[in-house]
Amino acid sequence: MTTTRLNRLQAAIQAAGLDGLALNPGPSLVYVTGLHFHLMERPVVLLFTPDNPPALVLPELESSKTQQVPFPIQVFQYGENPTTWGSAFQEALQSVGLAGKKIGVEPTRLRFLELEFLEEAANGSQFVSAAECLSSLRIRKDPQELTAMRKAVAIAQNALNATLPLVKIGMTERQLATELTLQLLRAGADPELPFPPIVASGPNSANPHAVPSNRKLQPGDLVVIDWGCMIQDYASDLTRTFAIAEVDDELAEIAQVVSKANAAGRAAGKPGLPAGKVDEAARQVIEDAGYGEYFTHRTGHGLGLEPHEEPYMFSESPLKLAPGMVYTVEPGIYIPGKGGVRIEDDVVVTTSGAESLSNLVRDLIVVG
Amino acid sequence: MTTTRLNRLQAAIQAAGLDGLALNPGPSLVYVTGLHFHLMERPVVLLFTPDNPPALVLPELESSKTQQVPFPIQVFQYGENPTTWGSAFQEALQSVGLAGKKIGVEPTRLRFLELEFLEEAANGSQFVSAAECLSSLRIRKDPQELTAMRKAVAIAQNALNATLPLVKIGMTERQLATELTLQLLRAGADPELPFPPIVASGPNSANPHAVPSNRKLQPGDLVVIDWGCMIQDYASDLTRTFAIAEVDDELAEIAQVVSKANAAGRAAGKPGLPAGKVDEAARQVIEDAGYGEYFTHRTGHGLGLEPHEEPYMFSESPLKLAPGMVYTVEPGIYIPGKGGVRIEDDVVVTTSGAESLSNLVRDLIVVG
Repeated sequence: MTTTRLNRLQAAIQAAGLDGLALNPGPSLVYVTGLHFHLMERPVVLLFTPDNPPALVLPELESSKTQQVPFPIQVFQYGENPTTWGSAFQEALQSVGLAGKKIGVEPTRLRFLELEFLEEAANGSQFVSAAECLSSLRIRKDPQELTAMRKAVAIAQNALNATLPLVKIGMTERQLATELTLQLLRAGADPELPFPPIVASGPNSANPHAVPSNRKLQPGDLVVIDWGCMIQDYASDLTRTFAIAEVDDELAEIAQVVSKANAAGRAAGKPGLPAGKVDEAARQVIEDAGYGEYFTHRTGHGLGLEPHEEPYMFSESPLKLAPGMVYTVEPGIYIPGKGGVRIEDDVVVTTSGAESLSNLVRDLIVVG
Repeated sequence: MTTTRLNRLQAAIQAAGLDGLALNPGPSLVYVTGLHFHLMERPVVLLFTPDNPPALVLPELESSKTQQVPFPIQVFQYGENPTTWGSAFQEALQSVGLAGKKIGVEPTRLRFLELEFLEEAANGSQFVSAAECLSSLRIRKDPQELTAMRKAVAIAQNALNATLPLVKIGMTERQLATELTLQLLRAGADPELPFPPIVASGPNSANPHAVPSNRKLQPGDLVVIDWGCMIQDYASDLTRTFAIAEVDDELAEIAQVVSKANAAGRAAGKPGLPAGKVDEAARQVIEDAGYGEYFTHRTGHGLGLEPHEEPYMFSESPLKLAPGMVYTVEPGIYIPGKGGVRIEDDVVVTTSGAESLSNLVRDLIVVG
């Protein structure tokens, strides 16, 4: 975290035709400043312009955090009575000259709460999405970021390896998810996971976004486990599918097809290729095997400070891949009422192709 | 979760002078529908009006979740290509007749992302905060909610009791926080915590919002532990302060003062009392002891589906307490560079006074 990132942000503000940027707590604020806050009822906003020192609005209670910021900022604090918060926003916006200007925001983070304070303080300002501007800053990971991501993958893999011997017929999805969470923390994951592990067994495995239930693992089940962790603010996100005892021929077959689709998706990435082509490579394998209608989601999503970020790997995406971009490759086949398979790896684009950061076995292993 | 909550919401929409309400994933959506989604890049919005069946916009991938909704809804799904999402919003808004109307939103949840889709789909609509409208629905907990909250408190207390014997001089704040997290999960907490445990030792304990560091616990330290868990969507939030071996007289004294302030705050609540009076009761004890300037935050906040919600317990708050309201009482004294104490309980207003849901010892115990 250096002033380099601030300089790049200020250049991106100008390139995007914005007068400034209002960042609230979230991945882009972490990227530029290293500052972490929980998104709660007290609004925190850092205002950037191409020239002035940034202005930070925050609760007095959090003021000690400002010492961590790696460049000079102006600080505007407020106390515990919400009726006084508006004036802190007003002073901050005036100090950087953003009243009445065109101000970019992070659309997946900025809330109506912050927007109301900003709009009231900066009468006549126009607020627009700075999604592309921020994505352009963050989409290519530097070596330090990749080191963190490799570590996040390694810890997630270690945690799964420590969990598998504990899987038993009759344990519930929820018990297995809790055990995996324990192993993630024990393996060194940051206390906040990017998402709680998904464990989906039997017919539940046919739901890509299942939540662990009290269903007990049974012989003949497929079990989809989708998990990850955060290390130094960076996420990993993996999925493997296991068999409880023997599964029937159709389930064994879809496991093989998805493994091949995953391999095709991992192999496809390279600089200059549209992201949609990675989706196409994985999808083609599944369509050729006759299961196209059961692959109901995109092939993957970008990964970094957020568990989902650019580049999104859907068929129509024209976004050109470039070295340092990291994304998941996670094809799946989901047969309603019966079962599903998903195999997910985290891939980084290199100067000549793509490299998988994860390497756990992808064959259908019997556990329990 | 019954249609009763829907009926109450629809009445609240009318009482607030709104034409409708746009709820995205968050506590109020859970309250009314039981639906959970992660706030990610795919927008999910449920539109309510006083009369029409609600209209839900969501990704196809999540469509199986609609079966859980306890009343009839209209569903508008979209696929994986973001350029197609706008039309789902447009159809949904038209179906409930909300285009061009006055629509309330949940300001701590609704993001610029959802707002952009809503504004584009409903040209000329006015979006306003429905914070008070939603708070009026949720602020008084019913017996079923209180049962969940008592359970969340009990599990948090059990987890701390299981952790304390493991505290050793030389272990880091972070190790202690991880151990407490493990014990929370083992005790039965839901996999997502309301916030990761705070462990702040020595001078760090003087920072109310410290993040666990690699500082090692040393003799003479105060250690503030602030933790909680979620059970059936409801949060607990507790703090206790411990001594590592002997602490000096001043630290022992502030521990006593905060314990008395906590008792005064717990005793103060009753129906009809302004919330500010609870703050005053706790603050007076600390001011009388000469430490007023070191109690740098409000005395507490409401608790329920969110770890921070109405009623906020700050001195100027005129909000009148009523049976079923739940809030924290968490006075503290923070002496910069030296150490701090906070003692936090979760309190429910009864028909005649206030009852603490938590009962862990509040005296300064020596651990390690």
